[in-house]
Amino acid sequence: MTRRQLHLNAFLMSTGHHEASWRLPESDPYASVDLDHYRALAAIAERGTFDSLFLADGPVLFSNVGQRPSGVLEPLTLLTALAVATEHIGLIATASTSYNSPYNLARRLASLDHVSGGRAGWNIVTTAGAEAARNFGLDDEPAHATRYERAHEFLDVALKLWDSWEDDLIVADKAAGVWGDERKLHPPRHRGTYFGVEGALNVPRSPQGYPLLVQAGSSQDGKRFAARYAEAVFTAQQSLGDAQDFYADLKSRARAAGRNPDHLKVLPGIVPVIGATEAEARAHERLLEEHIVPEHGLHRLEHLLHLEPGTLDLDSELPAELAPESAIEGAKSRYTLVVELARRERLTVRELIGRLGGGRGHLTFAGTPEQVADAIEEWFRLGAADGFNIMPAVLPSGLGLFVDHVVPLLRERGLFRTEYGPRQTLRERYGLPRPTNQHTSPALTRV
Amino acid sequence: MTRRQLHLNAFLMSTGHHEASWRLPESDPYASVDLDHYRALAAIAERGTFDSLFLADGPVLFSNVGQRPSGVLEPLTLLTALAVATEHIGLIATASTSYNSPYNLARRLASLDHVSGGRAGWNIVTTAGAEAARNFGLDDEPAHATRYERAHEFLDVALKLWDSWEDDLIVADKAAGVWGDERKLHPPRHRGTYFGVEGALNVPRSPQGYPLLVQAGSSQDGKRFAARYAEAVFTAQQSLGDAQDFYADLKSRARAAGRNPDHLKVLPGIVPVIGATEAEARAHERLLEEHIVPEHGLHRLEHLLHLEPGTLDLDSELPAELAPESAIEGAKSRYTLVVELARRERLTVRELIGRLGGGRGHLTFAGTPEQVADAIEEWFRLGAADGFNIMPAVLPSGLGLFVDHVVPLLRERGLFRTEYGPRQTLRERYGLPRPTNQHTSPALTRV
Repeated sequence: MTRRQLHLNAFLMSTGHHEASWRLPESDPYASVDLDHYRALAAIAERGTFDSLFLADGPVLFSNVGQRPSGVLEPLTLLTALAVATEHIGLIATASTSYNSPYNLARRLASLDHVSGGRAGWNIVTTAGAEAARNFGLDDEPAHATRYERAHEFLDVALKLWDSWEDDLIVADKAAGVWGDERKLHPPRHRGTYFGVEGALNVPRSPQGYPLLVQAGSSQDGKRFAARYAEAVFTAQQSLGDAQDFYADLKSRARAAGRNPDHLKVLPGIVPVIGATEAEARAHERLLEEHIVPEHGLHRLEHLLHLEPGTLDLDSELPAELAPESAIEGAKSRYTLVVELARRERLTVRELIGRLGGGRGHLTFAGTPEQVADAIEEWFRLGAADGFNIMPAVLPSGLGLFVDHVVPLLRERGLFRTEYGPRQTLRERYGLPRPTNQHTSPALTRV
Repeated sequence: MTRRQLHLNAFLMSTGHHEASWRLPESDPYASVDLDHYRALAAIAERGTFDSLFLADGPVLFSNVGQRPSGVLEPLTLLTALAVATEHIGLIATASTSYNSPYNLARRLASLDHVSGGRAGWNIVTTAGAEAARNFGLDDEPAHATRYERAHEFLDVALKLWDSWEDDLIVADKAAGVWGDERKLHPPRHRGTYFGVEGALNVPRSPQGYPLLVQAGSSQDGKRFAARYAEAVFTAQQSLGDAQDFYADLKSRARAAGRNPDHLKVLPGIVPVIGATEAEARAHERLLEEHIVPEHGLHRLEHLLHLEPGTLDLDSELPAELAPESAIEGAKSRYTLVVELARRERLTVRELIGRLGGGRGHLTFAGTPEQVADAIEEWFRLGAADGFNIMPAVLPSGLGLFVDHVVPLLRERGLFRTEYGPRQTLRERYGLPRPTNQHTSPALTRV
């Protein structure tokens, strides 16, 4: 039996996850729309035998163009281009259930799965924020619970579409002029609260059946959703204890939903800041913090906390009175994480902005390669993680340092693959089974 | 001054445009989801220095899986993959204004334009048919006029989104911490009949500004739309006279709309069936017709003509009484073209199906390379075409024959480029100007 293995995902973001990364001399401020930049990142991640690449997304211009690089390539487009430029690595795109139609999105994801030879993944998000809603004819964002209700129905429909072609539908009998077996086509004929989808998908069943399903919300609604559908979960956790609690909670929810908890992989995000010595790593972290313009972070923090502009003072702590998570219709779990971090460590707003500038709530870990590998191993062994979502502060250099200095240590310790081996689907990389088509009973033989 | 040059577009379709092409020994019945098949086609088209590749589309499973290859890769996905696999050729994707959101589609097209270095094109369709409507929660297709009204507003919004970033917005001043000039960002703040779109696009302005705009509907509504927006028009014309009338009509409409008529290129579709001798070409055409299962074509023809199943008889002509085009809410111009073709040549239903099996209403031309080149030159010189939409009956072989035997003749005659030369955008290939941003007055200098 092989030893339990780590899974590593590279979370790509233009010049890096630190908001000031673009200001460093090494960074290309035009990177976010440069395919060659992303090709180089994918090549580094494949050199590091990562399981997958990942892109976040929302259908909205998130940041202020005056303050930092804004605007990106649409993730499914970029990942399709990278599918051609890579051979092994999985390709996980974020796409919203609130601002897409199931028919359109299901066919795009199935198409990426075909084009990549079974390497497609979908990070399912419900998309918080009024700004996104206003790009789709709404005045304000739908309520959190409504977004998740729609997400559940979206998944129901998407799975019906992906299963609308049985695996062996195509018979390709040229002599008889019969291409497919019509009995193996199953139009959804779905009529629900949010969607009506009558017909079968217009993409034949893809190598994986459907993309790896990934989820990243950590609210109660998010965890319920993950327990039912997610095969991998990205999460922001600030301490080992919190991460262990989250891990145990999610695994037990998956078990309660009748699933094998091993078939739901939990990957906390970490921002590794790597130096030859701990002092060098800390100096690099400080250099990045010095490049933050605090006033820019102030606006974003007020927005996240649903406060009026001008409420916060840089050199004070957060106000004592803040709304409870239940009153927040936006990104609930991120709201709570940020408030708790500030309270726990009694951070001033300026300090909080510095902490968030790196990982936006994800754990920033500055140290030597050994220290980073130790932290990863500790979380992995102590029931806090099945793997990690690696979020380099600066790209490409931070990913290069991780691959060249941390990955070899993880390999030496027997925790991570040393080579890709034969071609595999994304699910196979993560040690997950290929889903069975809901119209195919594996126990029965067709007459 | 250089001589007026032909433009050639390769209309790709799995094993070819003839419905029975998949049954030939040479054809791969799994081709429609095989990236390598399309890579090979793109390589042939680049060898032939074509201007562009094109994929049709509808968000619906068009054909019966029992009868012929069904299901395809979503066009923007496939063309993105081909962008990486090619260097020069334009990439034109069909996408529907009736079943997409402007924000989502505008960003995907802008992303393809970035990834391809300015080679993206959009064939704008309104999508006929109740089947598509039923995949998006509707009971029936919207009326033809309503679809076009929505298409006009869709284009208005899409252009606002593509122009929401001025060309020189990005300043990338690392020292000052200023990435972009906020005054050069122009959120649409659009509130219309069909769409509300508040915010700016989340993709920086792309190499072409926005994709080449292509249109293919030939109804009155379609021609009005083309005169206003289209830079290239694909059209089905069965005779030189009809093609000349259409060409003159469209150019005069463009002129009436205040546009330079040279900036609207007209490309009729032709299905070349090429043989070393005319007899060989005719034999190949007959071989294809023999592979048609007439009963399959019968169902599709009844559907196109809005007749109940069982109305038509294979060995009779069309019924004398058919609804006028004005009563058809589906594909109006195709309806009229097919009815007129059948009436003019007094075809039986069986013969009509044979004719449509090749090009679905486009001109099939069977002959030697010289005969095909002569026909192309005649239409081009006599005011019927600025170029052609090449629709090989069988793929890849039909495209290979055209590139290796017809293209050299067109080059010898000085009608078509002999090499690509330096890298150009798709608009530059077609001899069209880059669009000016609606927020940038070219006559003024900014203070």
